[in-house]
Amino acid sequence: MAIRTPEQYIASLKDNRVVYCQGERVKDVTRHPLLKITMDWMAMDFVLQNDSRFQDLVTVKSENGERFSFVFQPHKSVEDLLRLREVVKLWARVCFGKPSGAKFTGKDGLSAITVVAPRVDKKYGTNYAEHVENYRKYLQKTDATLALCMTDVKGDRSLRPSQQKAHKDYYVRIVEERESGIVVRGAKAHISMAPLANEIIVLPCRAMLEDDKDYAVCFGIQANAEGLTFISAEPEIKEPGNFFDYPLSASVYINDATLIFEDVFIPNERIFLKREWPYAGQIAHMFGNFHRLSAETYKAVELELLTGAATLIAEFNGIDKVAHVKEKLSWLIQYAEATEIMGRAACEHPVSEQDSDLVYPNPMYANIAKLFFAEHWHQATKYLQDIAGGIVATAPSAKDYFNPELQGMIEKYLGGREGVPTEHRLRLVKLIRDLTSSYEDVLTLHAEGSPAAQILSIYKLGDFDRYKSAARRAARIENGSEHPIFSQLPQFPPNLGV
Amino acid sequence: MAIRTPEQYIASLKDNRVVYCQGERVKDVTRHPLLKITMDWMAMDFVLQNDSRFQDLVTVKSENGERFSFVFQPHKSVEDLLRLREVVKLWARVCFGKPSGAKFTGKDGLSAITVVAPRVDKKYGTNYAEHVENYRKYLQKTDATLALCMTDVKGDRSLRPSQQKAHKDYYVRIVEERESGIVVRGAKAHISMAPLANEIIVLPCRAMLEDDKDYAVCFGIQANAEGLTFISAEPEIKEPGNFFDYPLSASVYINDATLIFEDVFIPNERIFLKREWPYAGQIAHMFGNFHRLSAETYKAVELELLTGAATLIAEFNGIDKVAHVKEKLSWLIQYAEATEIMGRAACEHPVSEQDSDLVYPNPMYANIAKLFFAEHWHQATKYLQDIAGGIVATAPSAKDYFNPELQGMIEKYLGGREGVPTEHRLRLVKLIRDLTSSYEDVLTLHAEGSPAAQILSIYKLGDFDRYKSAARRAARIENGSEHPIFSQLPQFPPNLGV
Amino acid sequence: MAIRTPEQYIASLKDNRVVYCQGERVKDVTRHPLLKITMDWMAMDFVLQNDSRFQDLVTVKSENGERFSFVFQPHKSVEDLLRLREVVKLWARVCFGKPSGAKFTGKDGLSAITVVAPRVDKKYGTNYAEHVENYRKYLQKTDATLALCMTDVKGDRSLRPSQQKAHKDYYVRIVEERESGIVVRGAKAHISMAPLANEIIVLPCRAMLEDDKDYAVCFGIQANAEGLTFISAEPEIKEPGNFFDYPLSASVYINDATLIFEDVFIPNERIFLKREWPYAGQIAHMFGNFHRLSAETYKAVELELLTGAATLIAEFNGIDKVAHVKEKLSWLIQYAEATEIMGRAACEHPVSEQDSDLVYPNPMYANIAKLFFAEHWHQATKYLQDIAGGIVATAPSAKDYFNPELQGMIEKYLGGREGVPTEHRLRLVKLIRDLTSSYEDVLTLHAEGSPAAQILSIYKLGDFDRYKSAARRAARIENGSEHPIFSQLPQFPPNLGV
Amino acid sequence: MAIRTPEQYIASLKDNRVVYCQGERVKDVTRHPLLKITMDWMAMDFVLQNDSRFQDLVTVKSENGERFSFVFQPHKSVEDLLRLREVVKLWARVCFGKPSGAKFTGKDGLSAITVVAPRVDKKYGTNYAEHVENYRKYLQKTDATLALCMTDVKGDRSLRPSQQKAHKDYYVRIVEERESGIVVRGAKAHISMAPLANEIIVLPCRAMLEDDKDYAVCFGIQANAEGLTFISAEPEIKEPGNFFDYPLSASVYINDATLIFEDVFIPNERIFLKREWPYAGQIAHMFGNFHRLSAETYKAVELELLTGAATLIAEFNGIDKVAHVKEKLSWLIQYAEATEIMGRAACEHPVSEQDSDLVYPNPMYANIAKLFFAEHWHQATKYLQDIAGGIVATAPSAKDYFNPELQGMIEKYLGGREGVPTEHRLRLVKLIRDLTSSYEDVLTLHAEGSPAAQILSIYKLGDFDRYKSAARRAARIENGSEHPIFSQLPQFPPNLGV
Repeated sequence: MAIRTPEQYIASLKDNRVVYCQGERVKDVTRHPLLKITMDWMAMDFVLQNDSRFQDLVTVKSENGERFSFVFQPHKSVEDLLRLREVVKLWARVCFGKPSGAKFTGKDGLSAITVVAPRVDKKYGTNYAEHVENYRKYLQKTDATLALCMTDVKGDRSLRPSQQKAHKDYYVRIVEERESGIVVRGAKAHISMAPLANEIIVLPCRAMLEDDKDYAVCFGIQANAEGLTFISAEPEIKEPGNFFDYPLSASVYINDATLIFEDVFIPNERIFLKREWPYAGQIAHMFGNFHRLSAETYKAVELELLTGAATLIAEFNGIDKVAHVKEKLSWLIQYAEATEIMGRAACEHPVSEQDSDLVYPNPMYANIAKLFFAEHWHQATKYLQDIAGGIVATAPSAKDYFNPELQGMIEKYLGGREGVPTEHRLRLVKLIRDLTSSYEDVLTLHAEGSPAAQILSIYKLGDFDRYKSAARRAARIENGSEHPIFSQLPQFPPNLGV
Repeated sequence: MAIRTPEQYIASLKDNRVVYCQGERVKDVTRHPLLKITMDWMAMDFVLQNDSRFQDLVTVKSENGERFSFVFQPHKSVEDLLRLREVVKLWARVCFGKPSGAKFTGKDGLSAITVVAPRVDKKYGTNYAEHVENYRKYLQKTDATLALCMTDVKGDRSLRPSQQKAHKDYYVRIVEERESGIVVRGAKAHISMAPLANEIIVLPCRAMLEDDKDYAVCFGIQANAEGLTFISAEPEIKEPGNFFDYPLSASVYINDATLIFEDVFIPNERIFLKREWPYAGQIAHMFGNFHRLSAETYKAVELELLTGAATLIAEFNGIDKVAHVKEKLSWLIQYAEATEIMGRAACEHPVSEQDSDLVYPNPMYANIAKLFFAEHWHQATKYLQDIAGGIVATAPSAKDYFNPELQGMIEKYLGGREGVPTEHRLRLVKLIRDLTSSYEDVLTLHAEGSPAAQILSIYKLGDFDRYKSAARRAARIENGSEHPIFSQLPQFPPNLGV
Repeated sequence: MAIRTPEQYIASLKDNRVVYCQGERVKDVTRHPLLKITMDWMAMDFVLQNDSRFQDLVTVKSENGERFSFVFQPHKSVEDLLRLREVVKLWARVCFGKPSGAKFTGKDGLSAITVVAPRVDKKYGTNYAEHVENYRKYLQKTDATLALCMTDVKGDRSLRPSQQKAHKDYYVRIVEERESGIVVRGAKAHISMAPLANEIIVLPCRAMLEDDKDYAVCFGIQANAEGLTFISAEPEIKEPGNFFDYPLSASVYINDATLIFEDVFIPNERIFLKREWPYAGQIAHMFGNFHRLSAETYKAVELELLTGAATLIAEFNGIDKVAHVKEKLSWLIQYAEATEIMGRAACEHPVSEQDSDLVYPNPMYANIAKLFFAEHWHQATKYLQDIAGGIVATAPSAKDYFNPELQGMIEKYLGGREGVPTEHRLRLVKLIRDLTSSYEDVLTLHAEGSPAAQILSIYKLGDFDRYKSAARRAARIENGSEHPIFSQLPQFPPNLGV
Repeated sequence: MAIRTPEQYIASLKDNRVVYCQGERVKDVTRHPLLKITMDWMAMDFVLQNDSRFQDLVTVKSENGERFSFVFQPHKSVEDLLRLREVVKLWARVCFGKPSGAKFTGKDGLSAITVVAPRVDKKYGTNYAEHVENYRKYLQKTDATLALCMTDVKGDRSLRPSQQKAHKDYYVRIVEERESGIVVRGAKAHISMAPLANEIIVLPCRAMLEDDKDYAVCFGIQANAEGLTFISAEPEIKEPGNFFDYPLSASVYINDATLIFEDVFIPNERIFLKREWPYAGQIAHMFGNFHRLSAETYKAVELELLTGAATLIAEFNGIDKVAHVKEKLSWLIQYAEATEIMGRAACEHPVSEQDSDLVYPNPMYANIAKLFFAEHWHQATKYLQDIAGGIVATAPSAKDYFNPELQGMIEKYLGGREGVPTEHRLRLVKLIRDLTSSYEDVLTLHAEGSPAAQILSIYKLGDFDRYKSAARRAARIENGSEHPIFSQLPQFPPNLGV
């Protein structure tokens, strides 16, 4: 089949999957007014794949001349990573800052197991790399939408998986092993777009110790697998179709669902890790490297939008020449552009996997970029809200604006600077509200890894030998263990005999 | 009548006022599912006035033995201001951090004109103070709910009222003067709880120059005055009555409405300023002094709640012993307690009005306290969201939780630390979402004055002579103009002849 | 003797104490060019005590009519604490932000043992309170300068006193017990002004466990005690007497010395704690309560000076009307005034010691105020340096300025706004350099307790029951354990039957 | 001559230049104990040029086979800029974070006029490009040390050069024009290493208007030119040669001197701008692009050192496993590495000069990187001082440590974790004091452009069309002026007819 049309994608969703939304079992996910928002958003991937202007960017041709999604291909060069970045930016620009989820998270899971599976095979003599490659071919051929399922529900965060007290299923685990495969049980949370995906890659979400080995499991699964239940996240959307009042939330419903695995069977060829516990953490971290890159890539696009919203509302309100407003706009620009710089640097300076032709994004840079935008997001929303004014909280609704009894009054009074249509100002104000919602805050902080995870990663990745050598040399502390950069430097101050 | 019952208050609202909500003209504001939320919230003032446990705090007895609301009395001492603070804290604690709006903003307008009217009279020989006192007696007697109407819609913020280009009505102004009163036109925005108020005090929102004198107008008005239209703010509430998913937003709808004055007549005795333009700014600033105090008073209560939410979710998630979580909780505590300290200090160190027995909150401290909590709010929400985790964005809805097909799964998997009911965790997570909404952000920044206003006020209130004298003395810069504190100090270092 | 003259104080220092400074044993501390700076600074206490304008503030009369220092009196009321604050502010204003050290830290040690000694006596039947009172009378009578010695040198900070590996003397400890007293060994660091003090109170610096009981020791000691060696801190001063280039550092040398106790004998009547290990931490914390108050008191004065320096240099440079400069000045004002507010609140809302007429500063507020100024200091210095410009780093020296060959050029070119003498600008620039030195930074962070200590104290002092009750009530989480403030509140939203 | 030896450089300084230091006219700058520090530091450039390990990096061969400094060559590619970066990093690593000043600032002036001179020639038919190329050849041939002289003393910062009131010489200006050249008068401040340079390029420091055209002047000058006086900055160094107590300040004395031009003659061939006022700002900005890159390049090296100092002192103190310390170290790592990323990005994504083979660093990225490290420096020093503890302010001096009477005590008591020599700890503590001095703060903020300049530059460089198009598209505001990136995007949400 190779690349699909949006219609083909939609048709593929009628497969009896078990999806709940707002307390109801959804018979046909393609007909549900809220889930349709997710579906339409995901369908944009197929729109772009079939659009001649973008096709050469987002797809590649296989040896047999069939096109398939570029993101299903292994990454082997800086150019591959930079192209990946361009793809994600296109997705994000099309969809108001939120990249179409068709393959967005899934691709990073696929990339992660592509790198790690050969490591496991090398150590244990398993053949997971082959499983991964077969799975990749299947994805390429079916042009599947691919979700990624990582974060376990976790129960008591102070305890490891095997230490949990209320029950042992807070992390997905192997409960039975059969000749043909395994049976898993547990639940995962925040699984973006999963209810509208075809395939789902399931990864462990943390490093494990030997006691936790039943939890060291990784596999691919179809959305209609028996025993799998999706509970949709409560939607942010107040009123589907109202793009005036809810320009973002009525356009994108990511649907970070909770997935319940009630004794789901996974056939052997779909398994990519099975109790090789030392590699659970490696998969999680490798996924992090790729997904943090994805995060900073789309975030740079979202910040472009946020900066634009701040600039426009400053103009609409007539305060764009006010000194503190210009400073805040300058801050927003550097925030957006620095996110761009640092995300791109993770591509431009990747790491080459040993004994392999694969590369992955620079982990230090990917973590720094993610932390950078997450740590400063609330500052950005504060600045945006500050410039926009109280109207973000108090504006009337579209229904008021379009009521002929009121429209004249609203036109007259809620305008800003002369020449700016009141409708434009109101639409912008609503965009700003959507952009600064609690949902956006939490997404920015926690999606693609919480700040605490990046802080720890950066600490672990620090080049301490280099740092300490620099300090010891300046302090004249000799301990005989200089970093090579410093050991070769000439004496300073010099002894010039003057 | 003196103090009313909630029922009397509700009955008083059936007065044919012109209120719109979500595009519809509301026939009976007491029967509207959304406006009822505002009404119930405001009614808590009357509940408390009639509750024997609180009556002595929130009411006083007049000479004739009738009780009336304490907040309708002029403030003459530190004790009065501290009691005012206790009243606002009670209101706020009852209503989850949002003080019942019955008289919340109005009282500060009344206090402001109480202080400023005699100043105007002294300068111009007017008798506004008498108008104010008569109005006060009327309010005491009718136990009216009293809104405050200040912020004009402003049009182009870079232009003063009389400079506006599209039209001249961006600030409420006098368009006609009659023997018996004046006619006003214009619109005001963010007028909290006004659609459910009995009375509204209308103030100028900024300092004016002589050209703007038609805009220097202040008066009291009834909610059903002819020519007055209320357009409700688009409500945050998604589903009235659903306190599980929307514990705050389904309980409190402040309804910061837009008010349109289409040639509204104001009788002379209700006028408190009429073209005495140098006093427009004084009223605005004096209102600011009182209302910033109100702000920091209820905010300390809201921050108590926010700190509690962070503490509980840390416990529920099992991370309350993690070092960075404890540091964040410590930060939240200092944020809440410092807001309390600084707000209280504005009462404990008030300013006495010259030639008067009135006092008003310390303007420097009131501004510092307001700025302090507004500037750090986004940091607080970041910490809260960080501790709470992604579930704030992705939790299922009450409908999911109460669906018997799902409840077992949700109970099992979305629990936290052993012993914590899953329902408690979900309820708390929803509270956190409500607490960190865009609405709350914008309210915190802009209600009671935007940060830029406080920054400017603090600058203007700075005791520069004292500061500069301190620096000149240390730098040995003698210019003959020492502040008295410094001019009397002995020489340092001393000349001890050793 | 009661209150002494500066000359009497100076004479008292010729007592053969063992003081080193810059590698040399100082024969006569009153004749050393650097130690003299410390001495003159401390002598200001005696200047003020004998100055009729200040005598009634800084001294009290005993029953027999003799005056003695107010700070040697126990504190029993809000008024006492507020007066203490005024005394410290006077000391600080006289000495450019650094309160004369004669009794500055010592008084807080005396206050701490005054509160805690009766607690120990009550538990153990000891008579330390009597020792303290006798010691107090001695101090009052001799008008001694009194240092406070708390911070042990600590060795490996990850280990408790008794766990130290290299040796056991990283914390001062009892090495021998005799009938007439004890012998102590160890070293303490950062002991401000100790080399020029008459008396020194030695406190434990942390909570102890039973294993550490030899380290639970508290006593008073004379500066010339046998076995006691003072090693002066390396002075910041570059050139004594050059007040042009070093207006602060040539005026105040706090001399935070290292004190070495080599088997020093302490007679019984000078002992205030001896192995009663559960009280070691109480003394340390109680000292913290008093000393954090002292910190925020003088810091408010120092910030007044810093704000003045920023204001003046903005004027001198001609940038005082620039928007971002005004915002930075506004920030500095709020920083100074909020420090004032919060410090004063710790006096206005003290804690009463149980079964006693003593009070001590509110620990929550004292910690918040200390943390507040310490956490924001670097922001303040950044703003000050930003406004002042590069000249802070690059200005010529006084020697250049006063060289007739150069003075004309410097006069002409290094002036600022017209009318500002170049000399004033240069003097101010030097003040700013002194104010923003590494020394000032470190003093602000670590003196009176490091930020980590305050963060922990605030966490421990948090009123969690109240916070959590507020959150549970709003989230409708009922667990039967409401805080009294919340348990009595009426239902909200109300059920009004409408 | 081509590349020189350190000795040749030193010999070249005996040229009767007029240098003052600490109020004295210096006869021979090579023999002055303080100026020698600057000289030795600058001489490291020649040490490296003659060191076979580094020669191929820091020098290039001319067509005739003679080597000359790489930095005197025009930059034409990403590779050139990245090599420039490597050179600066080497200089900085050798000299404890402060790149040897021999050509450090001068090279950026040379690069700036290399780009701008052809622009001027194109507009005015002048032949400045030829002057620049001849000057370059002279520099290459003589291997001169080259300072850069930009910042005028400015007088009243609120006035442009021609508006100054006290006199007209606050900015260097042309006071006379002769056939053979011009005569200039005025003064410039903060001219790093100039007293020890051979050549100095003098640039305008800001954009000019026509009234200011006498101030629009740019030229090269020799250090011993008649009428030129250097007044050294007051040195930070307390004691030359004491590398224990002053490891940085005794090693590097940048000597940001004030230069007085008293009617100095500039021959025509050394003039690069003469009254072409619209280009004054262009030169200043182009210098900024290059010099901000230089700044972030060496700063990344300095931050490596600072991070190392923090890591080591945490280890020495035994607190490297404490959670908040690890978080602070993680923050310092991201600060250092992000500075590296962003500086390098300015090289990797340069701008190509129109109609030219020259490139220059990306101005947006160069400004962002400079602002980033300057804005966060004080946070970094706070963290470093916090981890290091009060000993940074209170440690004894080297003289104490090396005094045999004291060394035993100091060894015993001022050690940290077992196994760490006390001497190491003390040396490190002194390094930390030097690293966090007021001088370092001010240098970080103001050298290479003050934060306000970067904030303004970033604002001006913002791609507002792109930002606003993104916001308008999401808000559904159609105004017919989409940015090309957005105008081609497909509709979203799509209309899939489901």
